[in-house]
Parts: sequence; structure tokens; C-alpha cells
Amino acid sequence: MPKISTRGQILPSSPIRNLMPYARAAKKKGIHIHHLNIGQPDIQTPPQALEAIRKMDSKIVAYGPSEGQYSLRETVANYYQKFQIHIKPEDVFVTTGASEAILFALFSCFEQGDEIIIPEPFYANYIGFSQISDINIRAISTDISNGFQLPPVEEFEAMIGPKTRAIFLCNPGNPTGQLYDETALAKLAELILKHDLFLIVDEVYREFCYDGKFKSVLNFPELKNHVVVLDSISKVFSSCGARIGYLVTQNPELQKIVPKLAQMRLCPPALGQILAEACNSNVDQYLDPVKAKYDARRQKLHERLSTIPGVQCYMPRAAFYNMVGLPVEDAAHFCRWMLSDFSYRGETVMMAPGNGFYFNRELGKNQVRIAFVLGVEKLDRAMDCLEHALLSGSYAKVETTTSLSVDKLMP
Amino acid sequence: MPKISTRGQILPSSPIRNLMPYARAAKKKGIHIHHLNIGQPDIQTPPQALEAIRKMDSKIVAYGPSEGQYSLRETVANYYQKFQIHIKPEDVFVTTGASEAILFALFSCFEQGDEIIIPEPFYANYIGFSQISDINIRAISTDISNGFQLPPVEEFEAMIGPKTRAIFLCNPGNPTGQLYDETALAKLAELILKHDLFLIVDEVYREFCYDGKFKSVLNFPELKNHVVVLDSISKVFSSCGARIGYLVTQNPELQKIVPKLAQMRLCPPALGQILAEACNSNVDQYLDPVKAKYDARRQKLHERLSTIPGVQCYMPRAAFYNMVGLPVEDAAHFCRWMLSDFSYRGETVMMAPGNGFYFNRELGKNQVRIAFVLGVEKLDRAMDCLEHALLSGSYAKVETTTSLSVDKLMP
Repeated sequence: MPKISTRGQILPSSPIRNLMPYARAAKKKGIHIHHLNIGQPDIQTPPQALEAIRKMDSKIVAYGPSEGQYSLRETVANYYQKFQIHIKPEDVFVTTGASEAILFALFSCFEQGDEIIIPEPFYANYIGFSQISDINIRAISTDISNGFQLPPVEEFEAMIGPKTRAIFLCNPGNPTGQLYDETALAKLAELILKHDLFLIVDEVYREFCYDGKFKSVLNFPELKNHVVVLDSISKVFSSCGARIGYLVTQNPELQKIVPKLAQMRLCPPALGQILAEACNSNVDQYLDPVKAKYDARRQKLHERLSTIPGVQCYMPRAAFYNMVGLPVEDAAHFCRWMLSDFSYRGETVMMAPGNGFYFNRELGKNQVRIAFVLGVEKLDRAMDCLEHALLSGSYAKVETTTSLSVDKLMP
Repeated sequence: MPKISTRGQILPSSPIRNLMPYARAAKKKGIHIHHLNIGQPDIQTPPQALEAIRKMDSKIVAYGPSEGQYSLRETVANYYQKFQIHIKPEDVFVTTGASEAILFALFSCFEQGDEIIIPEPFYANYIGFSQISDINIRAISTDISNGFQLPPVEEFEAMIGPKTRAIFLCNPGNPTGQLYDETALAKLAELILKHDLFLIVDEVYREFCYDGKFKSVLNFPELKNHVVVLDSISKVFSSCGARIGYLVTQNPELQKIVPKLAQMRLCPPALGQILAEACNSNVDQYLDPVKAKYDARRQKLHERLSTIPGVQCYMPRAAFYNMVGLPVEDAAHFCRWMLSDFSYRGETVMMAPGNGFYFNRELGKNQVRIAFVLGVEKLDRAMDCLEHALLSGSYAKVETTTSLSVDKLMP
């Protein structure tokens, strides 16, 4: 049998998805699972967007332009004005989800072996994308005790070396729910200019800010040639399956490279683009109640978590995630046990083990990421499960008697 | 301004798409362009597939499984039985077009710096995909005079070195229209086993064979662990914009790696998958008249081309492309001239310069790829244009007086 590649083998599996076999087994036993592991909102896709798909009258689902339909790029540029961001349709490249936008950004800004600085914990898939594009991550640890705020600019500067090409942020933060404020971003902007780096920012949770005001890196005109913004309709318009994202850049050199990467895969999904274009009308009318829902869930989650003894939590300011410290030694093992050995009133809860969001896998071992993508009532029941699991003592007993080997637990 | 990456800069731009600015300029002048440059069929997408999209009743366009919807993987496995290919749904991974299937195959089979052997001319985007995944192409030239048949197995064997990981074919061939026969494939199969290589085959034109019978590499049971097949609904079901492709492999090791690559980009397009699943019913009822249409076009094209003095052509056996030698020195320049300076009865024709399909850019300079994706009548008018352009002598005059610099001609 021919040998497969090392680079394929060393790819991490997703901390968000790799407990799925346990979840399937639990479901087979008739246990209801509250899915707080994945950022799949239960919110409806904008009805006019679904209607646009149903009314589609073309007879051929044909290739479109590699950079995306111009009419969609126009509506995206218009939408950004809401945030005082003034860009041209030509600055917006439609991608197959923000995932592809990440890949395009990495391939166009980095040589093989270059370095990228990212505060951790961060969205787990950044690791895989960096690996396949041969980029080395330098991670700066941030702290659960202050809600994972942006590290001081000095910590970034200390990491900068001859191979550093960019700083990468996710703002608002997945998995942290943190929102970086204007002052902190302004200091980082100075550093970017001083060292002539790229600033790549994943802003897909922009619309969900509860405490404080969102500031985009596109709001800094001096960073015009330095900024690459990654965006997506997945979360904002609850259209994760459409696979429509955007790479936004005003850098004229990147604007030459990105279309070549885009041509290589021909075009972004045509049906998703029809949906995306229709999403961009009546945005606030759709989003205001959605945002209110998430806010209520955030508060419910925090209220419940903060009364469970030993749980370390903070109030997330944005997005729909919360990194939470649990009174267990190995949260990955605990999450698995919750699926394989636990239920309360016939229910259990699925969470994403926290250390999968760290580059340094020794960090975040007692943390989990909870996505508040379910309604307040379901969230309440899910927290009943978590509380019961932690307080009943049955896990504590398992923890002290079991070797915490992942392999042993694999079905 | 920060420096952009060399690997981005050296990416080739698409020979199929990079004359677009000239086409737009011609259209602005009111000239009608016959698009024979791109494999965008004028055939309707199966009506029941469009209907499935219109009837979609879900309220949330949600993430699906990373490997694709199981129900779709089942219909694909069933569809293959038509070709006596017996695989399980688990052997089929749904990708975002065949483009992504190529990328997944390269990342999972090759280390950085490994080599792949491909007969040229080949589908131009293989070059870019190999570049970004750090794989070196070793190209074997094939010959227009025999319709670009598969080179003798000895030529492949002579290319095999310590870094060789795979042989890559496109069968039926884009851009050649060639169909590799069973005997030639059987010899190659022996070579694959002898050297324990992967055999990666792009079979997206499988359904369009006019002379001779299609044989898939999946029909060779002894290659079970060696074969990766790339597939797509784009051409077969005229659904290029849906961006649904498949990677098919029975290799148990690849079946562990591909899901990790798939998880990284979350899932393939949800709407496209609905369309794709519906495509797989009443396949032959849909395809029989489509195939008859392409066959008539193929014959018309060949009839017209073979009467133009100086044109070198052959009868393609499959797919919907023909590589054609023209009586010009630089076909890329000629194609540009056809758009920028030529029209006949207010019409002109757009073709893809042939040397873009060669790894060795000194080859195929007088060739063009013609896609017979338009009806017989339009094809006839397009050939009137080509004939007139070549016979009128006006291009010959330009050719002898102009420096054939690409840069000079860029708008």
C-alpha cells in the first residue's frame, strides 16, 4: 500500500467535531443531547434569503466570476457602511466560507516557513490551515481570569522576528467571546505599521456585540495596505451551510494574487451567492431580535455557570461562545464521559474540549467552549445536566480511578 | 507596504479565464462572442434537480457532515454501479467541486517536494494546485498527431524516481478529448503496483464518450488501495456553479486523512448537495439526449476544422474539448487579436490558448483548446469566424509586423 503523507497524518482533528461518535452512540441509547459544542445557531436563516433560493429561475446552475458575483460584492460593500467602513465592491472577494478566505490570506501573505502571531485560545482550524500552508504559529497566551483580553502590545512585539509576516486576530473572539476595544486595536495598529506586517482579522461575529461597540480594523485608514478581513454569512445570517464568506482587502498587490487563487477553484457556490445577496437587505430588522436572543442566552448561561462551585467563568462581551474552566483535571475526558456514561432526566450536554483551541496543548486542559446557540429554556436544562454531572460526585469517582487515556475511550 | 508571498505571485493565471478583459472590451463594442474558451455547457441542469432546490423546506441552511450528506454519498455509490463500479457510500467524500478533491488528494498523498507524473497537455489548474501544495510536476509530452494518446508505460517508468508518489491522469481528457482504453490502463495498473504508487484520476467527463467505452480505474480491483478518483456534477449534470465534487477512495489510510481535511473547512455547500442528490435520479433519461447533442457538435466541429487549410486536428473520442493546431506562430496572441481586433458579421470567437495546458510552456504554442459547449448552429457561425480570421490574411499581416509581447497587449 502506498504511504500517505505525514502532513495529512499530523493534521489535528476538530475539537468541535471529534466527539461525534460518542454523541451518535448516546443518541442510539435514546439520550437527548444539547449541542453546545458547535457554532450552529438555531436561529432561522432570513426568510427573504430562503425565498430568493426558491424563486431562482435560471435553467443552468452555471459558473460565475471567480471573485464572486459583482452584484453580491456591491451589497457587501454597502452593508459595511453600517460600520463606517467605506470600501469598494472590488475590495470584496467572495469565498467558499471564511475557511477559504483564511486559506487565500495565508497563501498570499506568507512564504513557506514564515511565522504568524496569534493570541490563544483561538479558533481551532487555524492550526490545520497554517500546517497545510507551511506557516509556523507563535501563540501568545491570554488569560481566562480577565476574559482573555488582548495581550499588551509589548507581548506581540517581543514575538516579532525576521520570519514574522502577520498578526492574526479573531474579533469578536471565538472561542472567547471577547471584544477588543478601540484603544487596544489602535496600539496594535502602530505596531503593525512600525514592523510593516499584515493584520489578518476574522470578524465573522461582528454583529453580536452586547457590551461595548465593535471596531473593525477596516476603520483604521492608515492600515489600508496592511489589513485583510475575513468574513462570512454563516453566523450573522445563520447560513452556515451556504458556504459563503468574504476576503476583504484594499492592498493592491493582494488584489492581484487573490483572483489567481480564486481562478484556480473556478468560482464560489452559485446558489449560496443568491442566498447571500438576499441576506443583505433589511439587515437590522432581522438582526435586532436575533441579537436580543443571544444576549438573553449569554446572561442565562453566565447566571447558571457562576453558581456552580468550582466553575471559573466570566461574562462574554460578544459572539456566542464562552470558555469556561471546570473543576476537572481533563475536560476532554469529562466531555467524553458526559456522552458515554452520563445522563440526567434522559439528557446530556455536548461541549467542545478547551485545549483543542490552544496551540500549546498543555494549556486550557480544564476548559470547555460552550456555544450558546440554543434557547434559554434548553440552555437551562443543559446547565442542569452540567451542574448535576459536576455536583453528583460520580465523575469525580471516575476521574480518580481511570487512566485518562484518550485512546482507551475511542469506540 | 508589506511584501506579498512569492508563491502567490508565481501562480499561473488561468488560460481559460485570463482573456476576459479583452472579451469585455469586445462586448462593449457590440461584438457577439462565441465562448468556446470555457467548459461551461449550454445544457440545462436536470429539471428535477432545480425543482429540489425550489422545494427546499428547511428554515435553517445549517452545517452538514464534513464528508457530505450520507444520503448523497449513497446515491453517488449507487450511480457508479452503472459502470460496474462497486463502492460503499463511505468511499465517497463530497467536496466543493472537483477542485477541492484535487487539493485533498494532493495534501493527503504527497509530502512537500514529492513528484507527480502527468501526461501533458493537462487541465491547467493542476499546476496551481501542485504549486500551493509544494509538489513537483514531471510532465510526459503527448502528441497531437495521434490525438494525445496515453504514452507507452515505458515513458512513465523512465520518469519514476525516489520522490515519485503518484501518476495523475484525466480520463476522458481535458483538454484533449482523448479516451484511454482498457489495455493501456491495464499496463499502467501493473506499473502502479510494481512501484507502489498512487493513481489519481480525474474522471469528470466519464459520461461523454462517443467512440469507445469508458473504463474507470475503479474497475481494477487490484488497485483498490492505490486509486483516488476525482469526480464532479459540474459537467455531467451541467451544474458547474453548484460546486459539488467527489473524492472516491477505498484506501483505508486515506479514508482517515481526508475527513480531517474536510473538517477543516467544515462542510461542502448544503444547497449544492440538495441539487446533486436530485441529479442522481433518471440519469440516462437525462444524459442520452445530452450526449447525442455533444456528439453532433463534435462532428460539426471536426468537419469544419478539417477543411481549414493549415489547421491540425483530430476527432476527439470523448469529453467536449478539442486541442487544435492553428497555422499561427503564437496562438495566445491570435486569441487576443480575435477579441481585440477582429470580428466577422459582428461576431468573434473566444478560445483558450493551448500552451496554458502545458507544463513546458514552449509546447503547444500554436494550439488552442476549443470547447464544443454551444449548439451546432452557433458552432458553425463560430467556425465561420475562425476560418475568416485565418483565411483573410489580416492576422498574418499583424503577426509579421507585431512584437508578440503579451505585456504590450494587456489593457
